[in-house]
Amino acid sequence: MDENDLVRRIRAKARRRGSRDLVMGIGDDCAIFHPPGASEDWLLTTDLVIEDVHFRRDWHPAAGVGYRVLARGLSDIAAMGGAPRYCLLSLALAPWTDARWVNNFFRGFLDLARRHQTVLAGGDLARAAKLTCDIVLCGSAPRGRALRRDGARPGDHIYVSGVLGGSSLGLRTRRGKAWKVHLRPEPRLALGRHLAKTLKATAAMDLSDGLSLDLRRLCLASGVAASLDREPPVFPGATIADALDGGEDYELLFTLPPLAKPPASFQGVSLTRIGVIRKGKPGAVELLGRPLQPRGWDHFRGM
Amino acid sequence: MDENDLVRRIRAKARRRGSRDLVMGIGDDCAIFHPPGASEDWLLTTDLVIEDVHFRRDWHPAAGVGYRVLARGLSDIAAMGGAPRYCLLSLALAPWTDARWVNNFFRGFLDLARRHQTVLAGGDLARAAKLTCDIVLCGSAPRGRALRRDGARPGDHIYVSGVLGGSSLGLRTRRGKAWKVHLRPEPRLALGRHLAKTLKATAAMDLSDGLSLDLRRLCLASGVAASLDREPPVFPGATIADALDGGEDYELLFTLPPLAKPPASFQGVSLTRIGVIRKGKPGAVELLGRPLQPRGWDHFRGM
Repeated sequence: MDENDLVRRIRAKARRRGSRDLVMGIGDDCAIFHPPGASEDWLLTTDLVIEDVHFRRDWHPAAGVGYRVLARGLSDIAAMGGAPRYCLLSLALAPWTDARWVNNFFRGFLDLARRHQTVLAGGDLARAAKLTCDIVLCGSAPRGRALRRDGARPGDHIYVSGVLGGSSLGLRTRRGKAWKVHLRPEPRLALGRHLAKTLKATAAMDLSDGLSLDLRRLCLASGVAASLDREPPVFPGATIADALDGGEDYELLFTLPPLAKPPASFQGVSLTRIGVIRKGKPGAVELLGRPLQPRGWDHFRGM
Repeated sequence: MDENDLVRRIRAKARRRGSRDLVMGIGDDCAIFHPPGASEDWLLTTDLVIEDVHFRRDWHPAAGVGYRVLARGLSDIAAMGGAPRYCLLSLALAPWTDARWVNNFFRGFLDLARRHQTVLAGGDLARAAKLTCDIVLCGSAPRGRALRRDGARPGDHIYVSGVLGGSSLGLRTRRGKAWKVHLRPEPRLALGRHLAKTLKATAAMDLSDGLSLDLRRLCLASGVAASLDREPPVFPGATIADALDGGEDYELLFTLPPLAKPPASFQGVSLTRIGVIRKGKPGAVELLGRPLQPRGWDHFRGM
């Protein structure tokens, strides 16, 4: 059972009866709602961050953990082309956490929140053996215009923002620029909105679990296959495996109609065409003519 | 540092700049939003449920864990007089969880969701050493009419629904009716809406951490004191300590204006007047003329 299988099983059980305001449910970066009368659609997403699963306390400084918890949620809003509005934080402190750690955690968290006009509006507090966070992000998007994973069509071109593999390299070496991008990934919020509004992207998602796995998910959702005719841009010093299979880069993966002419970069972030969507077995991805195995981060592989 | 202190410190740091749609932020059972143009207010709440903190796998059957996770979120919506609409579930499975456990967990969860027309619209999946859930509930309430903790005024009468201490007794004995109410607490959703719409309650919250602690929180939020002139109704077989300090009863604690004449019960659930709100040191609570110490469940006492 892998994560895709588990999600499919849960979705099959969670029928959507009586959910007339639900535009998109299980299976994308955010759920999409249309509250009756509202001028915009609303986005909602939740993500876990757990000690010794998503971070290590002897490696990750408290402010970096706080930053990364919020960035993880913001990146899901970016992937939908939305604007973040509110967040809720569930936080279970561990026996080792002291007031200083908590203060630094909230400094990293709230600095990023302010930068993106995101208001911490509530949450839950508990204690547990391992420090545990769950971030809930609530955002808005122009009505019917949120970007989704399921809109890619044969002939669309496939793009990634930025360079990949930096976070994976940073986690391995814990120094230099790679460690910095691991600790402070930049959620691509302005780019997400530009993709939705101006570039008319047909599909998008954020690269949280690695290109090889996430592109497979986008293709599964859209019922299409993909051919990559070049390797993605690689973070200086990282390997191609870091770039293909390393998670937590939080760049955007998106598809544009065949005739779109995107700029080479947006606000200093490169936009690189790496391949094309094609008909074929849903979820099948090729790189330079060979099958690309989904080796990204899947908690449930081999379960 | 207790939970109230920690919440106060976080709230002081989380300023609300740029949050014109946020009706109520940190400090109540739910955050309250008014999306531009929407015909209703929206409620959002999140709650953690962690193995060996909130349940034990050798005591709690999987379906009961699933039920209780959702009930915890639904009860927060009930406390605001709202109607549940959508939920998101973050779930980290532990090494010991197998497909059968997961199926039973979702059976308990989704049976309750269907009963309250609540649609599972998304979430996150991970693995961790301990089974970890975070439930996100999204509900709606008539505009400006959600019940809050901060509206109690001197002279208001204090009420509780049902009988208290059953969950605490059930957790201790793990048999009989008490164990059943521990495993399947009934979120008081219809009562919450009745309190908001018909009885015009001035304040309300759910009893998740015990009457002695939760009444103190309601008084702190409202800037008032409270005198209880009788003990609350006690679950058969439970002690008065179970009823005063035991958590997870998920009954409603609420205040009504002095002249209100509520029925003795609503849909078979008793409504019992136990005291009166008075001026005084905010958060001070007396029972039969003596100070009532807040001994309910506080993860952070003595931290």
